[in-house]
Amino acid sequence: MKGRVDLSHGGGGRAMQRLIDEVFRRALGNPALDEGNDFASLGAVQGRLVMATDSHVVSPLFFPGGDIGCLAVHGTINDIAMSGASPLYLCASFILEEGFPLSELERIAQSMGKASRDAGVPIVAGDTKVVEKGKGDGVFISTAGIGVVPEGVNTSGSMARAGDAILLSGTIGEHGVAVMSSRENLSFGTPIVSDTAPLHRLVAAMVSAVPQIRAMRDPTRGGLGAVLNEIAMQSGVGMNITENRIPMREEVASACEFLGLDPLYAANEGKLVAVCPPEKAEFLLETMRVHPQGRDAQIIGEVVEDKRHFVQMETVLGGKRIVDWLSGEQLPRIC
Amino acid sequence: MKGRVDLSHGGGGRAMQRLIDEVFRRALGNPALDEGNDFASLGAVQGRLVMATDSHVVSPLFFPGGDIGCLAVHGTINDIAMSGASPLYLCASFILEEGFPLSELERIAQSMGKASRDAGVPIVAGDTKVVEKGKGDGVFISTAGIGVVPEGVNTSGSMARAGDAILLSGTIGEHGVAVMSSRENLSFGTPIVSDTAPLHRLVAAMVSAVPQIRAMRDPTRGGLGAVLNEIAMQSGVGMNITENRIPMREEVASACEFLGLDPLYAANEGKLVAVCPPEKAEFLLETMRVHPQGRDAQIIGEVVEDKRHFVQMETVLGGKRIVDWLSGEQLPRIC
Repeated sequence: MKGRVDLSHGGGGRAMQRLIDEVFRRALGNPALDEGNDFASLGAVQGRLVMATDSHVVSPLFFPGGDIGCLAVHGTINDIAMSGASPLYLCASFILEEGFPLSELERIAQSMGKASRDAGVPIVAGDTKVVEKGKGDGVFISTAGIGVVPEGVNTSGSMARAGDAILLSGTIGEHGVAVMSSRENLSFGTPIVSDTAPLHRLVAAMVSAVPQIRAMRDPTRGGLGAVLNEIAMQSGVGMNITENRIPMREEVASACEFLGLDPLYAANEGKLVAVCPPEKAEFLLETMRVHPQGRDAQIIGEVVEDKRHFVQMETVLGGKRIVDWLSGEQLPRIC
Repeated sequence: MKGRVDLSHGGGGRAMQRLIDEVFRRALGNPALDEGNDFASLGAVQGRLVMATDSHVVSPLFFPGGDIGCLAVHGTINDIAMSGASPLYLCASFILEEGFPLSELERIAQSMGKASRDAGVPIVAGDTKVVEKGKGDGVFISTAGIGVVPEGVNTSGSMARAGDAILLSGTIGEHGVAVMSSRENLSFGTPIVSDTAPLHRLVAAMVSAVPQIRAMRDPTRGGLGAVLNEIAMQSGVGMNITENRIPMREEVASACEFLGLDPLYAANEGKLVAVCPPEKAEFLLETMRVHPQGRDAQIIGEVVEDKRHFVQMETVLGGKRIVDWLSGEQLPRIC
């Protein structure tokens, strides 16, 4: 290999086989992937299946706290976990730009392999395509995955009901600020790193304690603001939240002020929002706080009747503010 | 909508919701997708699962006989089918370039919807990202899917044994030549159209008649030559094939000559290679020929012992030729 991706790496011939063997199989290897077919044989699966997919185009590819590789693994694991499911298998498709350094591709593949092993969710199938220089941007990664929902669990963004409590698992804005400051070459007194992490273990503890959880969603693109509006719209309800209950690191708040970002719309990659019946909220909160990924969890508000599906926030100063849909693009290519 | 993709369509806000509602849900809608979660709820599945994924970067996006949309559906259905499985569900991730006409995106989404309905395999989950102009190329589509293998069927590229018969389901080279001539703005006396098609119904008939099929693979990128070499390597065998048994349309042969392409390496998107025990070969051939997608099927050769894993071809003139791995890229971005 001459050290860079060339078009032959996507051609279906010997160069592609070598790339698969020397980069992907070495980093991601497991029995299903190693079999070397265009499909992965997985065995039987008991229970109700869920499936999810995500494309990842984050720029830059490497950022404080992570890279496109681990992000692509965590992103799809988390989408599956938001159904209450245990993620079982992932697959990954790569679109490489001609000229991309193979050493960086190796780093990314190794980061995916580590994220996949740490999460206990193997990458069982893959695909590689190459586009000409100037027709892509280094590497794009699409992941898809499946999981199985535990008996008695049934969540959907459409199931929030007036009176339900709204919980948030931790501090907001870290991924968005980490990527943005890395893109702008900014450094702050206290370095801000992405919160990218797999949430399925936290979710397993949550649904085991409170199988009645109505809805979960991870506030990635569009942040907390987008996710609350989505659930409100899907369920045909409104939401009232309280600003000073939303956990946020001080350095993230300062960085957002400096960058002109509203942290409510900044992306997170290791946080979740959960909606549950009010009488279960305290127990769910305690359960979350026992878990390392939920130690800063808070009940941030409640679901209310509202035909306009507004998300309203009581501000720190005691006023009211509508947390509207984001109308433009706050941060392109954040994930 | 101003008629073109802009960065806000990937931002997680209102514009993205509208794109999803007005383009993707309208074209692809089904209950799981319409639920509007980041995951699709699928119910329980009986039997041994398989999973596959493919990214699609074909250029041009529209070509004689198809487009990137139906190709993305057929590509993953076929990868799943090569395990002998019935494909059940697909998901699709889109990477859109800023400025791409929404009307073309709609055409592509509708083509995917039609391909998915025709095949009976719904697209249950999706994702959309947008990259800046010049960082992508119109649209890239990654699909992934799952299927269930019938009891008693067990295929893998590693299972070919000396003495086995090698079958090919039909004429080769059409997809490669159709895309290539469209790219070069060439037209031939008889128009050559892509063979893009889902193969799962042909496969269902084949594995039902001959569950002992050892291996199947669809000769896409790299064509028949690549697929035979892959199976030979995986199984640790050699192969002898006979050139005049390989079905090919005359116009494809002429176009290949004109374009300087070797049809053995030209891509197909609606053909398959099958390896089966010799005593089952005639019955499998008859079964395939009854099916519209197998009417031109042929037994093209046999598996032999060969520690070098060579694929050798008896040429039309009676000579011998080694069908080697493709070492470069014959046709970039063919799928």
